[in-house]
Amino acid sequence: MTDFAAWSRASQARAENVLAALLPDPAIAPEKLHAAMRYASLGGGKRVRPMLAYAAAEAVGGETLENNVAGSKPTAIDRAAAAVELIHVYSLTHDDLPCMDDDDLRRGKPTCHVAYDEATALLVGDALQSLAFEVIAHPDAASTSDTQVEMLRLLARAAGSRGMAGGQAVDLAATGRALDLAELEFMHIHKTGALIQAAVLLGALAHGTLDSDARTHLERYARCIGLAFQVMDDVLDAETDTATLGKTAGKDAAQGKATYLTLMSVKEARAYAHELLDDALAAIQPFGERGLRLAEIARFIVERGY
Amino acid sequence: MTDFAAWSRASQARAENVLAALLPDPAIAPEKLHAAMRYASLGGGKRVRPMLAYAAAEAVGGETLENNVAGSKPTAIDRAAAAVELIHVYSLTHDDLPCMDDDDLRRGKPTCHVAYDEATALLVGDALQSLAFEVIAHPDAASTSDTQVEMLRLLARAAGSRGMAGGQAVDLAATGRALDLAELEFMHIHKTGALIQAAVLLGALAHGTLDSDARTHLERYARCIGLAFQVMDDVLDAETDTATLGKTAGKDAAQGKATYLTLMSVKEARAYAHELLDDALAAIQPFGERGLRLAEIARFIVERGY
Repeated sequence: MTDFAAWSRASQARAENVLAALLPDPAIAPEKLHAAMRYASLGGGKRVRPMLAYAAAEAVGGETLENNVAGSKPTAIDRAAAAVELIHVYSLTHDDLPCMDDDDLRRGKPTCHVAYDEATALLVGDALQSLAFEVIAHPDAASTSDTQVEMLRLLARAAGSRGMAGGQAVDLAATGRALDLAELEFMHIHKTGALIQAAVLLGALAHGTLDSDARTHLERYARCIGLAFQVMDDVLDAETDTATLGKTAGKDAAQGKATYLTLMSVKEARAYAHELLDDALAAIQPFGERGLRLAEIARFIVERGY
Repeated sequence: MTDFAAWSRASQARAENVLAALLPDPAIAPEKLHAAMRYASLGGGKRVRPMLAYAAAEAVGGETLENNVAGSKPTAIDRAAAAVELIHVYSLTHDDLPCMDDDDLRRGKPTCHVAYDEATALLVGDALQSLAFEVIAHPDAASTSDTQVEMLRLLARAAGSRGMAGGQAVDLAATGRALDLAELEFMHIHKTGALIQAAVLLGALAHGTLDSDARTHLERYARCIGLAFQVMDDVLDAETDTATLGKTAGKDAAQGKATYLTLMSVKEARAYAHELLDDALAAIQPFGERGLRLAEIARFIVERGY
């Protein structure tokens, strides 16, 4: 059993390779759009969502990533991992646009609309969303069509107005306004939590079916780490410089966005993240040894430096 | 058997009701996003794509729309009709944004980013795309999961970079540049043709399975009417005033976009549209009487006044 650093590197490398294989070739028309889709998606990112998909598949009995050498064709789990990451990348690409967060830097590179242009970045996001669904509507994406439809339904709901896009809308409406903890968490549960939960559930479903107990455990785990991720994002955004972060630091506070640090001190926020970590670890106890990678990801989220 | 005017009104009314039922309630959070999604989607539009879905279902043996009274729950065919229309509305909403066509008027109303704001219009389009997939990933959307996965795959491909979004990218790249007929048709086959084909195939699949002959006939029909639709759009854009059109007239030519009228006269364009109509009608001959509505839609597309 390799340590987490090696496993997460393997998982990131695999996600990168799978995305590179599933994104359209830039030699195929429309070339500029395809090149821009690859620019936005490849070469960076923590790949937390693919990692969660791989770890969830292991938790429900899938082969460990190390024994499961990447073949020439992406597996069902690879497709689940790629689909959630494509939705994530599309949301970042649209989020960075001038009419949203107006950000120039992402993953240490110029954002897509800076490197290309706004219209192209808009279409990149649109086409990445379609591609996410195409990737898991492929015949290789699940063992049965019933499971596949369930995966597609989960992803559509997680991405839409009662999931991620809805969370963005709440975030927009909240800018410059004080939120209480309940409102802030409502926003995060939608904006980032929904897709994190989809990553975990799709990874598990890509391995096979999911009984309702296992599903409940995974949902609770995902909810806790989703919030912990956001708490730590706010802490790191306040404490870390732009170069280390790979995106503009201190921006949320400067834009008058509600963060955990408007409601609590850094020390309290770190303590809260640790509480959420304990909850997440308790939720996956029933998976025993097989839940190791999920546990390690939860710890990584809370203890990471950027 | 009612005449086409009555059938198309029934089809439009039904599509409107189905969309109203499937779009999230504006009383559900995030309220503003949900209200804006309804604003963009309801109360207007020719609903050509839903009409095509209903007509295709009839062609392959589905009940005629008049006998098939809308119940409280949308049927599989209703869902197919709604899904393609949601993708269409999302693309219009994004297309109207300042970084794309920068249009203020759509379906006789202020465009979504004018009535709301740019960030909201961006999220409206994003969320409508997700909703389209959610609508056909619902358990009621097909008789078997295999068919459902095929419908989802077709829609994802039609919407994505090798379909509609790709066509938009080609259109962007072509602005201000002379295109020959082959390039212009490549653009239209992607930009509007892909989704028109999806409307026809999804409508037929929502009724049941589709043998390869029937599929070939429907694909040929869709390809012809998709091009005819675009030829007539260019003719009408040049000949009709803004009030009648419900969107800004003469804009494509003013923006230096390639249209059929840069390649042929109005008379030649009308003749070409009629050739495409004849081809479309020949393609659906094998459906006999059941293809009546498809034939009428094809005629409507070529003979419409706006």
